[in-house]
Amino acid sequence: MQTSSFSAVDHALMARALRLAEHGAYTTKPNPMVGCVLAHGERIVGEGWHRRAGEPHAEVLALQAAGERARGATAYVTLEPCAHTGRTGPCADALVAAGVARVVAAMRDPFPQVAGRGFERLRAAGIAVDCGLMEGAARALNRGFLSRVERGRPWLRIKLATSLDGRSALANGESKWISGEASRLDVQRWRARSGAIVTGAGTVLADDPSLTVRLGDDTPFVPPLRVVLDPGLATVARGRVREGDAPTLYIHAPDAKPPRGLGAQVAAAPLRAGRFDLDAVLRLLAGRGVNEIQLEAGATLAGAFLAEGLADEVLLYVAPVLLGERARPLFDGLGIERMAQKLRLSIVESRRLGEDVRLLLRPEP
Amino acid sequence: MQTSSFSAVDHALMARALRLAEHGAYTTKPNPMVGCVLAHGERIVGEGWHRRAGEPHAEVLALQAAGERARGATAYVTLEPCAHTGRTGPCADALVAAGVARVVAAMRDPFPQVAGRGFERLRAAGIAVDCGLMEGAARALNRGFLSRVERGRPWLRIKLATSLDGRSALANGESKWISGEASRLDVQRWRARSGAIVTGAGTVLADDPSLTVRLGDDTPFVPPLRVVLDPGLATVARGRVREGDAPTLYIHAPDAKPPRGLGAQVAAAPLRAGRFDLDAVLRLLAGRGVNEIQLEAGATLAGAFLAEGLADEVLLYVAPVLLGERARPLFDGLGIERMAQKLRLSIVESRRLGEDVRLLLRPEP
Repeated sequence: MQTSSFSAVDHALMARALRLAEHGAYTTKPNPMVGCVLAHGERIVGEGWHRRAGEPHAEVLALQAAGERARGATAYVTLEPCAHTGRTGPCADALVAAGVARVVAAMRDPFPQVAGRGFERLRAAGIAVDCGLMEGAARALNRGFLSRVERGRPWLRIKLATSLDGRSALANGESKWISGEASRLDVQRWRARSGAIVTGAGTVLADDPSLTVRLGDDTPFVPPLRVVLDPGLATVARGRVREGDAPTLYIHAPDAKPPRGLGAQVAAAPLRAGRFDLDAVLRLLAGRGVNEIQLEAGATLAGAFLAEGLADEVLLYVAPVLLGERARPLFDGLGIERMAQKLRLSIVESRRLGEDVRLLLRPEP
Repeated sequence: MQTSSFSAVDHALMARALRLAEHGAYTTKPNPMVGCVLAHGERIVGEGWHRRAGEPHAEVLALQAAGERARGATAYVTLEPCAHTGRTGPCADALVAAGVARVVAAMRDPFPQVAGRGFERLRAAGIAVDCGLMEGAARALNRGFLSRVERGRPWLRIKLATSLDGRSALANGESKWISGEASRLDVQRWRARSGAIVTGAGTVLADDPSLTVRLGDDTPFVPPLRVVLDPGLATVARGRVREGDAPTLYIHAPDAKPPRGLGAQVAAAPLRAGRFDLDAVLRLLAGRGVNEIQLEAGATLAGAFLAEGLADEVLLYVAPVLLGERARPLFDGLGIERMAQKLRLSIVESRRLGEDVRLLLRPEP
């Protein structure tokens, strides 16, 4: 990998390609987000971003926009161009055919059918290839896709709203509303970029959430799969989680029998000591093409994912309210007795959101 | 009060006077912080800020710096100039004598010996007086002094460090350290501006804090009074709170007998239903010239001040750690059963501080 020798123009145009890629956040899943900019020096002659699986890749759209001006241009791509014929032809071949002189990529594509072959094809055709420009940002952008391809499980985000005193619900279960309106709208945007929204049977019974995306405008999105972890399939007969257009999947224990004509997807996951093997649950969802999971569950399930080291980020809406010492804890089952056992996270970003503060955190390894 | 007709230059010079005033944050107590700028148009000819009780007032220092150039100048003062002869002569008279043409004040001084008389003297001498410029900022700056003079009790700040899940200590009482180094240094600065640091007997027994100011450099400060709320005087024999140069005050129940030769201050405060009458405690401290209190206590005492509506602000260091559901709550005794009973605060400021986030909050009335 080459990380030196990139010019200021290279950086600026890759930054632009990354911003273009992000436009696909709600729609490219399970594909990665990709952006492409074609330029002669700093003069942009074409650009594009991947919109939906089955539709043209970013490079193809940029080449179409550039036409003859693609000849001799540099292509800035946020991910290695593909070398395989999927639902569209190989982008590497298209770049060669268009006479592009140089390709600058943010990162190699770990997808097994690409994995360096795109770069090989370009180099074999005499095109200069430089990889690694703004790789950190590119990896962060596609952390869901990369997690699924490289680790075999989706990126797991735990979403929670908390009071200042770390409570997500009152003792009686009441939790509407802790956070403010701006926070609740923001949650919808994070849902929209998720491949699945996962909850537990307890939350379905207590809160009856719909787990749909309500952006409040006509921004297009691919509805995330709604997943209920329900060992005994106790909640399948009811609930808003069955309503609307988004698909619903119940994950159940191996010995539970899904009723006939359920009208929802079902899948069995193994138990360990009477509880779901959460790693197996994640692998099951990766197998269904889920890149990013947003967990919207109670303290027990959230605590279990966290305690098992399976949480990749925590999206925490901190509302400036106090719910008191009798209210329910944010996470259950962490089992911390000594200060040395405390779980450490780091703050990736903090932001005021209406009356609340939103923290994005990552557990420290 | 006049709030219109101030020019951009007026605003800029009052802002400067406010910044000057703030230099006295650690040293003017129990006096208010005051800054003064003398200018002809936008040309500054003298400035000053009040350093310590007994030392010259801001106006006097500014006049000294300006000398003959004070004649015909405008004086920007963050508080009404005094009209009484305290440890220094009346500033209103000094401004008159120097031939100042106009006085712009941020606010009237509610101190009974001033309370408009300063303005009267100036006007009687033919000086134009405009009051109310940036009054909000001036009131925020001296919120401690104003609270003592206007309400008869100090401004009470509750300082707490919390985990993300709202815990201030483990079940075994361990609390060192939840927050990071940058936060712990920041706490020292808030201590330095306080007139008293208040804690409870329980915290003295559990943590043995020294409650001194350790700024890590030679910035001058007036050591805050260390106050232990100890009904039965159970902790007087021991503890770091007795060590060092700062004075210590034990507040005890009326029936407790302070031991002879204690070498610390003592004062009795009334009880109500077996617990301190916290309002009486605050009035007692106001009577001793305390403008600002920083409460550094456990969940019970912090919760009691908050539940009784006696907390004016909460300084919360949120560390990105989790301590789990068995750890101690942030506030005890809030008695919240329904969502409508939740305590609402508003975020005055949020700031990243090392690995932590610092929130400054005010309870909503």
